[in-house]
Amino acid sequence: MRELNKEQILNICYGATFLGSGGGGPFKTGQNLVGPLSTTHGLLGLSTAVESLIEKSLGDGNTAIVQTVDEVSDTDGLTAMVAFMGSPDAMLKFDSIDPAIAAFDKLNEQFDNNIGHVIPVEVGGLNSIVPILVAAQKGIPVIDADGAGRAVPSLTMTTFSVADVPSNPAILAKSADFGTSIFVSTAAEVEAFARPVLAVFGEEAGLAMWVMDKALLDQAVPIRDTLQLAENVGAILTSSAGKPAEETINAILQMLSASGLAADIVFSGIMQTPETKTQGGFDFSTVTLRNENNDEVWIYVQNENLLVWNPQTTTAMITAPDSICYLCVKEDGSVIPFSNADIEPLGIIGQKAYTIGITARSQLQTGTILNSFKKSLADFGFRVPYRPFPQ
Amino acid sequence: MRELNKEQILNICYGATFLGSGGGGPFKTGQNLVGPLSTTHGLLGLSTAVESLIEKSLGDGNTAIVQTVDEVSDTDGLTAMVAFMGSPDAMLKFDSIDPAIAAFDKLNEQFDNNIGHVIPVEVGGLNSIVPILVAAQKGIPVIDADGAGRAVPSLTMTTFSVADVPSNPAILAKSADFGTSIFVSTAAEVEAFARPVLAVFGEEAGLAMWVMDKALLDQAVPIRDTLQLAENVGAILTSSAGKPAEETINAILQMLSASGLAADIVFSGIMQTPETKTQGGFDFSTVTLRNENNDEVWIYVQNENLLVWNPQTTTAMITAPDSICYLCVKEDGSVIPFSNADIEPLGIIGQKAYTIGITARSQLQTGTILNSFKKSLADFGFRVPYRPFPQ
Repeated sequence: MRELNKEQILNICYGATFLGSGGGGPFKTGQNLVGPLSTTHGLLGLSTAVESLIEKSLGDGNTAIVQTVDEVSDTDGLTAMVAFMGSPDAMLKFDSIDPAIAAFDKLNEQFDNNIGHVIPVEVGGLNSIVPILVAAQKGIPVIDADGAGRAVPSLTMTTFSVADVPSNPAILAKSADFGTSIFVSTAAEVEAFARPVLAVFGEEAGLAMWVMDKALLDQAVPIRDTLQLAENVGAILTSSAGKPAEETINAILQMLSASGLAADIVFSGIMQTPETKTQGGFDFSTVTLRNENNDEVWIYVQNENLLVWNPQTTTAMITAPDSICYLCVKEDGSVIPFSNADIEPLGIIGQKAYTIGITARSQLQTGTILNSFKKSLADFGFRVPYRPFPQ
Repeated sequence: MRELNKEQILNICYGATFLGSGGGGPFKTGQNLVGPLSTTHGLLGLSTAVESLIEKSLGDGNTAIVQTVDEVSDTDGLTAMVAFMGSPDAMLKFDSIDPAIAAFDKLNEQFDNNIGHVIPVEVGGLNSIVPILVAAQKGIPVIDADGAGRAVPSLTMTTFSVADVPSNPAILAKSADFGTSIFVSTAAEVEAFARPVLAVFGEEAGLAMWVMDKALLDQAVPIRDTLQLAENVGAILTSSAGKPAEETINAILQMLSASGLAADIVFSGIMQTPETKTQGGFDFSTVTLRNENNDEVWIYVQNENLLVWNPQTTTAMITAPDSICYLCVKEDGSVIPFSNADIEPLGIIGQKAYTIGITARSQLQTGTILNSFKKSLADFGFRVPYRPFPQ
C-alpha cells in the first residue's frame, strides 16, 4: 500500500495516455492548457481540468491510496470497476468526476455499502485517473491492476469479461438522480444497452460494475501493476524537457522491456490532419504520419488505434491487440503523450510524432479478446492474421 | 371488487381497442386469427395470442379481480403501473406477458414486495389487458382506472405525470435477467431513456413504474371506471353480428353519453392503404378514408390518431387530445374495433370504416397534457387551436 501525491498522479496521467494506444480518454480534457506550472513538470502543458480534478479530490485532506491485488483483503470489502464511458470527443468537455461517483454510490448501495476498493477498467489518460480520484474521495484504495493493460474499444475486450465476472448490475449515471441500473448477463449485453443510452447522457457517463471478492479479483485481473508502470513511463515523459527526444524514447522502451513488454518504434513523421476515408464500402477514420522521404503510414482508429498500414508496401506494420502508442516531440525536445481526441485540440498537427508498438500481453493474444479485436479490424475491412510486434 | 371471466376480459379488449384512439397496442397480436369461437362472440375473429394469453393467465385457477380506487386499502399494499412500451408493429409479434411480469417483479423487489395492486397506464387493446393478466398471475387486483382514459403517445400525457408521482425507479424489462432500472426525476426523462433502449429489446418491453400509496393514487387517477367502460363498449361490439351497423354505433354513442362523454361520428368511408406523405418538410403517417362521393379525410398518426383533416375544406375536423376512434363494419354487419397497427394484418383496407370522435376528458384539456399533445401536433406542422369535438 502506498500513497500517491499530486505529481505521481500527473505522472500516471502522462504514462497512461501513452499506454492507452490512442484511446482511454483524452489527455487534454479542459478547454485551455495552462501555461508553465509551478511543478517539476517545467514547461509542459497540463489540462486545467485534470489539474482541478486532482486539486478537488485531494484538496479536502483526502489521500490517494494504491494497493496491489495481493494486499486486498475481503475484510476491507469487495472490489468494483469504475470508469467513464462515452465518446472521446465528448470527454474533452469532462470537468467533474461526479458521474463516476454517482455510478459508484448506486452500485455500492446495491451491495449494502460493502465495496471497499475500486479498480480501473483499462489504462488511459482518463480511465486510469478516474478510479484514483473516486477512491480518494471515498476514502478507499484503488487497486494497481486493470482489465487490459491498455485502452480497449469494448468492455468485452477485458479480462473481467473473460473471467465471467457477473455483469449484473451495471450502473450508468450522470448524477444520483439521472442514470440507469442495467440487469443483464454479459458484458456484451451491457455494451448493447449502454451505447444507445449514451446520447441521453450527452455521450459520456460514469460506469460502475463488476463487483468481485478477493478470490474472483485474483482470477479476473492477471494484468497487474499497470498504475505503477504508467507512473514510471510518465516520470520519464515529465522530465524530458531539454533532453534529446531519442534519449527519452529509448528510456521508455527500456522501461517497458524491464516490465516484460517488447516494444519498438513503428514509424515517426509529421502529423497530418486526421480524416475519414471511404474505401471498399467502409468508413475509415485514419491518422496519417509523413516523414521527410514523403513515406506515409495510415493509422486506423476506432477510438483506439487498431492498425498501422504502410501504403508503400501495402502491408500492416502492426495490428491490435498490440498497443499502438503515440508520442509527440515539442520544439524544446520535451516529449508528450496524446490520444486521438487530443490531436486537434493539443495542436499535434504539423508536429513530429512517433508511433510506438508494444506487443500485446498474453491474455489479449487469445480467445474472445483476440476475436473481439479481429472483429473490430474486420469492421474496417482488414482480415489479416495477428502477428505479434516486433516480429 | 368483482371477478372478471374470460368473456368479460375479451369484451374489455374490444372496447379498449376502440377507446385507444388508434393506439394502445394492436387488437390483433397474433399471426393468425382463429375462426369462429365457441363463445357468444359468434363469428368475430379473435387473436390466438390474446386468447392464449388469457387462457394461460387464468388457466391455473388464477382469477382476475378488479377493484375500484375507493376499494383500495394501504393495508393491501402499494399500487404500481404496469404496461407494454414499444412500437405497435413490434407488438404484433407479442405472445407473452412475461416482460411485464419481469418488470413488475423487479419493481416489487425494490419496494420490499409491498406492491398489492396494478393499474393500467392508458386504455388500449393491449395496455388494458396486460395489467389484468399480470394481476391475475400475481394474485392481486387490478384497479379500474388509468392515466388518460384513452391511449396516449407519451408517458408525459398521463395524469400520473401531472400528479408528479415519483418516476424513480422505472423498470424496463424483457425477462428477469434482461432489463434496466432507470433512476431519473420525471416521466419525460424516463421517455428519453427508454426510447433509445427499446431497439435493444426488439422494440417492445415490459414497463413498471409509478408506485403509489392510496392517498397519492387518489390524486393521480381522476379518470376512473375505464375498464368498466371498455367492457360495456366491448359487449356491444361482440354482440353486433346480424344487427344493422348503425344500431351498434348508436348504442356505443349512447353508452359513451351515459358515461358523460360527448361523442359523434366524424366520417365514414372505405379504408385506403396507409401511406407516409412528405409535405412542408415533414413526414406524415396518414390514413385515408374515402366515401361514395369521393370525399376524403386524412387521419394523422403518431401511434395514436392525432388529427382528422378534411382536404375538401382544408380544415381540421377533430384534434387530440380528443379521441379519434376506429370501427370497421364487416359484411355480416358485425362491427369490430381496430388500431393503426391492425389495418394491414386485419385486412381493414377496402372495408367500410368509421372514425368516432370523443371529447377529451377535462384533465386532458389543460396544462401539460394539452401542451404535450399540441407539441405532437406541431411536430406534424399543425399549429391549430384546440376546440373540443363535437362543436
